[in-house]
Formats: sequence, structure tokens, C-alpha cells
Amino acid sequence: MASTLLSRQLTYILQHNLKFSLPRSRYVSQPANKTDVDVGFEGPLMKTEVPGPKSRDLMKKLNELQNIDAVSFFCDYEESRGNYLVDVDGNRMLDLYTQISSIPIGYNHPALVKVLQNPQNVSTFINRPALGCLPPENYVQKLSETLLSIAPKGLKQVQTMSCGSCSNENAFKAACIWYRNKERGHAIHTKEELESCMINQAPGSPDITILSFMGAFHGRTFGCLTATHSKAVHKLDIPAFDWPTAPFPTLKYPLEEFVRENAQEEERCLEEVEDLIVKFRKKGRNVAAIIIEPIQSEGGDNHASDDFFKKLRNVAKKHGCAFLCDEVQTGGGSTGKFWAHEHWGLDDPADIVTFSKKLLSGGYFYKDELRPDMPYRIFNTWLGDPSKNLMFSEVLNVINREKLLDNVIESGKVLLQGLKDLQVLYPHILNKARGKGTFCSIDAPNEAIRNQLVLKMRNKGIVLGGCGEKSIRFRPALVFKPHHAHLFLNAFNDILGAHK
Amino acid sequence: MASTLLSRQLTYILQHNLKFSLPRSRYVSQPANKTDVDVGFEGPLMKTEVPGPKSRDLMKKLNELQNIDAVSFFCDYEESRGNYLVDVDGNRMLDLYTQISSIPIGYNHPALVKVLQNPQNVSTFINRPALGCLPPENYVQKLSETLLSIAPKGLKQVQTMSCGSCSNENAFKAACIWYRNKERGHAIHTKEELESCMINQAPGSPDITILSFMGAFHGRTFGCLTATHSKAVHKLDIPAFDWPTAPFPTLKYPLEEFVRENAQEEERCLEEVEDLIVKFRKKGRNVAAIIIEPIQSEGGDNHASDDFFKKLRNVAKKHGCAFLCDEVQTGGGSTGKFWAHEHWGLDDPADIVTFSKKLLSGGYFYKDELRPDMPYRIFNTWLGDPSKNLMFSEVLNVINREKLLDNVIESGKVLLQGLKDLQVLYPHILNKARGKGTFCSIDAPNEAIRNQLVLKMRNKGIVLGGCGEKSIRFRPALVFKPHHAHLFLNAFNDILGAHK
Repeated sequence: MASTLLSRQLTYILQHNLKFSLPRSRYVSQPANKTDVDVGFEGPLMKTEVPGPKSRDLMKKLNELQNIDAVSFFCDYEESRGNYLVDVDGNRMLDLYTQISSIPIGYNHPALVKVLQNPQNVSTFINRPALGCLPPENYVQKLSETLLSIAPKGLKQVQTMSCGSCSNENAFKAACIWYRNKERGHAIHTKEELESCMINQAPGSPDITILSFMGAFHGRTFGCLTATHSKAVHKLDIPAFDWPTAPFPTLKYPLEEFVRENAQEEERCLEEVEDLIVKFRKKGRNVAAIIIEPIQSEGGDNHASDDFFKKLRNVAKKHGCAFLCDEVQTGGGSTGKFWAHEHWGLDDPADIVTFSKKLLSGGYFYKDELRPDMPYRIFNTWLGDPSKNLMFSEVLNVINREKLLDNVIESGKVLLQGLKDLQVLYPHILNKARGKGTFCSIDAPNEAIRNQLVLKMRNKGIVLGGCGEKSIRFRPALVFKPHHAHLFLNAFNDILGAHK
Repeated sequence: MASTLLSRQLTYILQHNLKFSLPRSRYVSQPANKTDVDVGFEGPLMKTEVPGPKSRDLMKKLNELQNIDAVSFFCDYEESRGNYLVDVDGNRMLDLYTQISSIPIGYNHPALVKVLQNPQNVSTFINRPALGCLPPENYVQKLSETLLSIAPKGLKQVQTMSCGSCSNENAFKAACIWYRNKERGHAIHTKEELESCMINQAPGSPDITILSFMGAFHGRTFGCLTATHSKAVHKLDIPAFDWPTAPFPTLKYPLEEFVRENAQEEERCLEEVEDLIVKFRKKGRNVAAIIIEPIQSEGGDNHASDDFFKKLRNVAKKHGCAFLCDEVQTGGGSTGKFWAHEHWGLDDPADIVTFSKKLLSGGYFYKDELRPDMPYRIFNTWLGDPSKNLMFSEVLNVINREKLLDNVIESGKVLLQGLKDLQVLYPHILNKARGKGTFCSIDAPNEAIRNQLVLKMRNKGIVLGGCGEKSIRFRPALVFKPHHAHLFLNAFNDILGAHK
């Protein structure tokens, strides 16, 4: 299997202004390296087109039970290892998408196998408690060892939830409760409020709002979906609240080359945010919270400067809105810091930070002042899942033991530099290489070409995902090493060279 | 430990108009029976008040991280078995609340331990897939063996979700998509629709509504919460949609004694439902779906007749609304049928049935015509959890092997008859004994007395839950046997006899 470190050659060639001759296949004459001795795999291994015959057969069967248009192929998770996802037809693929960015330390990590095999853990997996009423003995200790050990700056309270959407929905609720308590001066709720909320009327069901950004993705339940503006297909036909939508900066890349223009664009968006807050306040629809992703992910990997986030945070403070940072996709280490918002370098970056995906279940951290004032206001039957937290505890051990954040930074450099090299070589196919850590992306000229590239790469043994209109997003696990980046870059170069 | 079959004596005494002398302790002179040889426990065993010192210490620690006002006590799940929940202070309690009705076959059932210990299952627990894109090889087979094997009549499609709220949110979405497609005559979406939905405006974000009932509980995320009307504390300060709320019949119990009055009350509510549909249609807010619980659970275990549900189902049909049946709490067998709506005996009972809790994760069954027409409209990262489905597969095996639905019917008879006997003995404390299977409840005169009874019972080794304003709800696991019902009834009789 091709697995030479071609992209280093590419870099060298480009740096020295050497002529690079295509097709790249000429440059892969060396025998394959043993790239993944730890998992016993030597790179991708393709046996059929993907989806292969077994996948297609299973898709036909699944189609009898539900819409399958989003299914890529069926997987053999038992055979998958580390960065390699194996499908039911025996195809072994290097996975740079990791179940929509939700696999932190690769497939079947031996440390997680041990968690499952430890007889002491059995009870946690088979007795799911109602955490809000009857928590298990080790609950506080496990929270301290896991979530609290990585709590974002300034946030000492934590609420667990089962998924990303529930995390954001409940973060919205916490912000609304906090905001209304502030508005009423922490006086006791009135009889009118208690009665009117039962029939969905103000003042009990208030006309307060959550401000979100065009291009944002915060989930697909009714509250979250109102704040989501990535694609019409997610929102069409679903009732939404009349909540303000601000423009997200449309920046020019590479960011460092367009500092002045980008700063102007960000200024324009910040002004619009303030205008919206004032406009909505005038129509009696106060903004209780602003929610934003540190990098708009589903919406197309849209970045903004640290300065933008700093100013936005101040706008929230100035207008008395809670500042919610949605780290469902960006959190967990793939930007090179555990939380992407840590890159901003602010003393007081957020009032609430939501998480899920790589953290295996969901939830949010929040400031003391956002703590609900009564029981059952933030509540549901399960409020997360201690078995997921038990596994996440081991994920954190692995991240620390294997120094995976350092690894992400190293691999991310190789990946991003390689993408930048490739966009120089193939300017008609690629542009806007961008990223932090391994949380990278690059754009194709349009959706059709992006989709073609993703499919061609899949048949070459590389799993990629799209985002936005025409971006390819890279979301490898934290165990993605520099040699995996080279392996991907080589394969990508092949595809790009042959692309017509 | 007191565990004689006193309630049988009670029944006998009452049936024969014998005088029953209090306090009941006189009647428990026999040595304790070995009530739970299968789990090695001889009934409850109390060592401290609940919460005991260890629980109180842990509550203090948890209080540093979150609001703990809803925490009852901390549990030792490893030591819990069958119907017995053990707390961290070593108190062993008979559990008739089962983690808010979410433990199907008791604690640490040996069959579930085996699922965990089977090396073939490890991969399913540690590699959580994005089910909508990359399902595991055995996905269709597992769905067929589990969820589809218990699919409600007429519903052949199934969508898995992670929790009850997500199940209802997505059921609402499926209904809205279906309704709007019907309205537009299945024509293609317009450019105006696609653009307007991105900024939460009609026609893309339509003003359609979901009709729900006063007293209903459908979850706590923004869409669900709008349809929830059980308690103000759940809804206060959270923005809500302007969706119609119909009255739920306020029936007189026992139902069989007030057939005529109750039928009138149900007729009144049905008329109001139709009036609301017409009224909302006139203001441009068509009702896309009606959602109802077969027994309003959180709202106070409110029942209605089969005839009411039959007529309501017809109202939905007549007005072109989807009919959603929320079986999150009622589903899973505790009414004596797997789905509570099966009791109605209708040929076409519902268009969508949602589930969670005892089914270990969540989701909904739906008719073919409610199948989404495009990918990603009903979607999220995980879409449930195959590891929960794997365990649920074994739960179903146990239900069949141990004939647990028959057991529920038998135990439910003992429980309900005992409750009826007790309300005759203590008419100043208890009334409205009601239920189906073990899904029973009884009312106290007010909230304060209800709460006192629940706490007193807890200190006697029986875990109960409240619902509504003043009801005690009984939600034992499906392995709750007649002798457990007697054990509970004896203890309850003690408490009631001593209640001042």
C-alpha cells in the first residue's frame, strides 16, 4: 500500500522551487512502510468499491425500516482499529471523519477494552440511574476526575446530558432562567407567571430570545434548530422561534494575509450583533444569550479572529446577555487545546460551555450565577450516562499518558502544511486550506467537485466528511499521527492529480 | 422483616365485612418469609434514616457542582439486586419507582451481566457509531430482533434516538415535515421556503402547531416543553410556541362507577379539541399533530376511556393531523401490555408512537407515509446507541422467558386491589386508587401529606415516587412479583395506621 512520506517531498520541492511533475504515482516507488504496527495494519486495504456488495445488501434491508439516504456504508466495528475503520466488505480505510468527529482515541483502543472487561465496571453499564435523583456512590468523584479536571476557565458548575442537542437546549434554558431571574430582581415568581406559562403565554413563557449566527449549527431539536442556520434541509418545515440571526464574518484566507479586510468584516458583524440586540429589545424580545461556535463546523469550518470573539464576549456583557460557547464539535482536543475557545486567550471567555461528541455523552459547564434556583428546572430522567463518563475517564487517561494534545499539534502542522502545499499545486481544485490542530478543512470549487473528491478518496481507502456548501472537513481522532497525515496527503495528491 | 401476605387477609376481612382492628402491627406476628431467594434478600433492611450520613456527605460535595435539591440519596448500584435498591449507607429498599420508571427487569439482572461479560459485545460498547451514516453490520438484524419485534400495530418504520425528549422532538419534526408536504401537494420546496427557513420565517419555518393536553408531560426541550403542561416549575421562564392546549378529561374514580359522567366530561374535551383545531386554523396556525399519553403520567396518572382515545384518533383523522402517542413512560410492559395504547383495541391506533425509559434508549415507530423524503431531515450524530439496543435485546428475552407481562398482570391485580382495600380503610388519607397492570397510583388529600407518606415509606424501606399534585405513582420493574406487592401493602398499612 502506498504510504511513503510524499508530502514531505512535496514540501521540499515547493520550498526549493523545484518543478513538480505529475502524476504523483511516479513518486511512490518505495515499498510500503509499516505505518501502524500498534494496530497491526499497514495502511488502507481496499477489496471492493465502497459501498461494497455486503453494504449494499444491508442498505436495501435497512431501507425497509427507514430513510437510508445518508448511509455511507455498513461497518465492521470489531475489526476496526485505531485510525482504521473496516467495512463489512473487508475494506480498511483511514478514517479522518471519525463518526462525525465523535471518536476521541480511535477504534477499539485497548484501554477502553479493559474498562469493559473490568468486572468492577459491570454494574455501571447495566444499571442506568436517574442521575438527578439517585446518583451512584462514585458520581462526585468521577465528575471530579473527568469533567471537572478539564473544566473551562471560570466555570465550576457542570451539568451532564445525553447528547449535543440536549446540552444546548438545556444551556438555553439555564440562560433563560438566569436572565428572567435577573429581570425580576430575583423576586419570587408571580401567580400570573406561574399560570400563564402553563398555557405557553407571557409573562410565564417570556418572549426572550437567543441570538445566533448565520452558518451556525447548534443541533436539531426545536430550540437548537432555531439557532441553527447551516443548511435549509435541516430547518425546512419545522416551526421556529422569532430569534435574531446575526451575520458571521466571511473572512478571506489565509487569515494572516488579510488581517485588515477581515478586521473590517468582523467589525461589521459585531455592529450588526449590537443593532439586533437593540432592535429586538425595542420589540420586547430581549436577547437572553448569544451562542457561538469557536469554529463554525457544520456550516463550513468558518473561522474568526481571537479579537472578534473577545469583542463579542464584551458585547454580551455590555447588553447583559449570557455568552454561550458551543464546543460540541470543537471541544475534546482536536484543535490542539482541549477547548477551542482557549485559543482566544481571554480571562473570562464564556458563561456556559456546552460539549458532547468526543466527550462520549453531553453536558455543559456554567458559572455559579447560572445555577438553577430550584430543583427540576434543569432535569430529565437520565441526565447523561455514568457508563459513558466511566469510559471518558479512561479517554482522559489515554490523552494524558500518550500526550495526545501534543500529537494533535504535530500532526495538525503536517496536515495543514500539506493541504496548503496541495492547494498551491492544484489551485483549480482546492482553496482556503485552514485549521487549528488537526481540525482542518479545505474548499473545493463547488459542491459537486467536493462530493466527487470525498467519494474518490473513499474508494482509495480514506474516509472524509464534507461540511458547508463545498468544504472538506478533517476530523481525525486524537491518535492520528504525522505518518497518517502523510498517508492521507499522498492519497489526496493521487486523486487530485488524476482529477479531470 | 415483615413480609407476610397481610393484604390478602385485608381483602378477606373486607369481603366478609369483618371488623379490622388497627394498628396493623398486630397482624405481623409470623416469622419473615424468604421473599427473594432469587436475589438472596429477605425484604428491605434499614440501617439508617434516608438519606443516611454517607448520602448526606456526598450530597454536600455534589452541591458544590450543581443544584442537588432533587437528589433523594446516593446509591450503591453494585449491591442492588432485582427489586431492591441499596443505598450508600447500606439501606436496602424495595423499589417501586425504578429510576423514574426506567429499569425494566430490576437491578443487576444476571442476563444483563452476561451481555456485558460476553467478549463478542465489547466492540459495541466502546465504538459508538454515527448510526445515520455508518451503521454496524448487525444493525438491521438487531432492530428486527428487538424494536421491530414489538412494533405497535400498523407501524413498520422505526427511528432510534437517545432519550425521550429527543424522541418526541423528532416525532414532532416528522409530523411537521409530513404535514407540510401534504399541504404543498408533495410539490418540490420553493426557493422562498428554502431561504425563509434559514432566518426562522414563514413559509419555510411554518406557523403549524402541535396540539397537546393540559396535564401532559412530553419532555423538557423547547419543542417538547411547549407540549408539556404538568407543572409550572418545568416551563417557567422558557420561551414557548403558541401551540394549542386542550383540556384533558377530569374523570371520577373508580371509572366503572362513573361511566355516564365521565363520558360527558370526555365529550366536552373532544369538542374543545375540535374547536381548538378550527380556531387555530382560522388564525393560520394549522394543527399538524395531536400528541397524547395513554395515561398522563407526570401529570398525575390521569386516565381516560378507550372510547375517548378512539374518538380522539378519529378527530385527528378528520382534521388531517398526525396522531402521536407518547409511550415514553407507559410503554415497555408495566400496564400489562407492551404498549399501553394496545388496551384501546383500535385497528389504527396511532401514526407515531414514541418510546424511551424501559426500552433503555429512545425513538419512535411511524407509518410509512411519515417517512422523511430526504436525508438529514431526521438526523443527529448518534441517533441512539447500539449498546443500549444490545441490552434491550436481552431485556426482551427475559420478558419472554420469564413471562413478565403475565407477571405484571398478576402483581398488578394484587397491588391495585390492595390499594383499593387501603383506601377503604383509610378514606381520610387515600382516594382514587387506579391503574393498569402495575402502572398504578393513589391520591393523598394534598401535596404535603403525599410527600410525608413517600418519606415515611422510604424510611421503612420502600421507594415510591410522586406525580401530579398529590398522587403517589407505582412504577415497579416488570420482575415485581405478587409477594413484593404484599410486602409493600403491609408496610403501607403500617404507615397509614400510624399516620396522624
